[in-house]
Amino acid sequence: MSMSLELDAAAQDLLFRTARTANTFTDEPVTDEQVKAIYDLVKYGPTAMNTQPLRVTLVRSPEARERLLTHMSEGNRAKTAAAPLVAVVGYDTDWHEELPKVFPHAPGAKANFDDAAEVRHGMGSFNATLQIGYLIIGIRAAGLAAGPMAGYDAEGVNKEFFGDGTHKVLAVINIGRPGPDAWFQRNPRLDYDEVVTTV
Amino acid sequence: MSMSLELDAAAQDLLFRTARTANTFTDEPVTDEQVKAIYDLVKYGPTAMNTQPLRVTLVRSPEARERLLTHMSEGNRAKTAAAPLVAVVGYDTDWHEELPKVFPHAPGAKANFDDAAEVRHGMGSFNATLQIGYLIIGIRAAGLAAGPMAGYDAEGVNKEFFGDGTHKVLAVINIGRPGPDAWFQRNPRLDYDEVVTTV
Repeated sequence: MSMSLELDAAAQDLLFRTARTANTFTDEPVTDEQVKAIYDLVKYGPTAMNTQPLRVTLVRSPEARERLLTHMSEGNRAKTAAAPLVAVVGYDTDWHEELPKVFPHAPGAKANFDDAAEVRHGMGSFNATLQIGYLIIGIRAAGLAAGPMAGYDAEGVNKEFFGDGTHKVLAVINIGRPGPDAWFQRNPRLDYDEVVTTV
Repeated sequence: MSMSLELDAAAQDLLFRTARTANTFTDEPVTDEQVKAIYDLVKYGPTAMNTQPLRVTLVRSPEARERLLTHMSEGNRAKTAAAPLVAVVGYDTDWHEELPKVFPHAPGAKANFDDAAEVRHGMGSFNATLQIGYLIIGIRAAGLAAGPMAGYDAEGVNKEFFGDGTHKVLAVINIGRPGPDAWFQRNPRLDYDEVVTTV
């Protein structure tokens, strides 16, 4: 199947085929330099109107980690406590403020969104979610494993970490080197014909 | 910056650094074999509960292409008419029907979602959007360019291509080899410190 791909086999394995969602991690820290290198790669992933609404909060202090744990669902608490690094990822509902910088050839673009909070919410969450997809691939590109989680109290996380109300959480991601028994057996994927239709 | 990444430089370029959103394409067809190879790679990207809600409709017949064009916004019509392949991508709102296959160790999981249409909508659109992120990377892994678009009449596309109401469009993606003047100058990306905060 890989015959039609230009991406080399090692990269296919690193990013998709042997990469797995880790549930345990080693003690090896994840450095700011690693996160910067990941961002410097995935920032090039495309978003509508180059909006780049993704915002990331790295939870590094023990106090902040404790506060986060209180909002995680019980099944996610132990692994979130143990992960070398935890990132709260979401979107800036005021992403349009950046349009003069990120979409400079359309100077009037920002004004179109000033009074369009619902459109900003929709575009922000959609495009930041695309960016979370790129980010998960980028974490793997750094030789690390990502453990994205949806089980948490979103309102609590928003209040705790995005207190001014302009950011909204979309996922919490554990990041690190996989530890012992880091994953379950891989679950089946849908067949091509179950996903792709031709008209 | 790439010093901290395990992914080789050529792969970084292919997927992110030199890859661009194409607005023009050559005449070279995109084959089913290429699409199958892309799917066979990106199907491994993680989704919550392995739900894999992404569904793809390849618009291959001239009649279907004409019908799609009527729903595209004017600025997207010419490039959508000219692209070698156009994919309508969205999510199956009844993704929970697949849980017995894709999440076999939790036989009761499906029943939890039978009467939870709003939860299915939220999880379906979020996880399928992650998968669209993986898909864009996968298209690039095949040496092709992707042109994802949000400018279309969603209700019209849903009616036309997902007539039974169970699928919802999230994006339309032009796919092919970049043609002459395929892209504008790259727009600026946000700096690390504008996106990442540490607590």
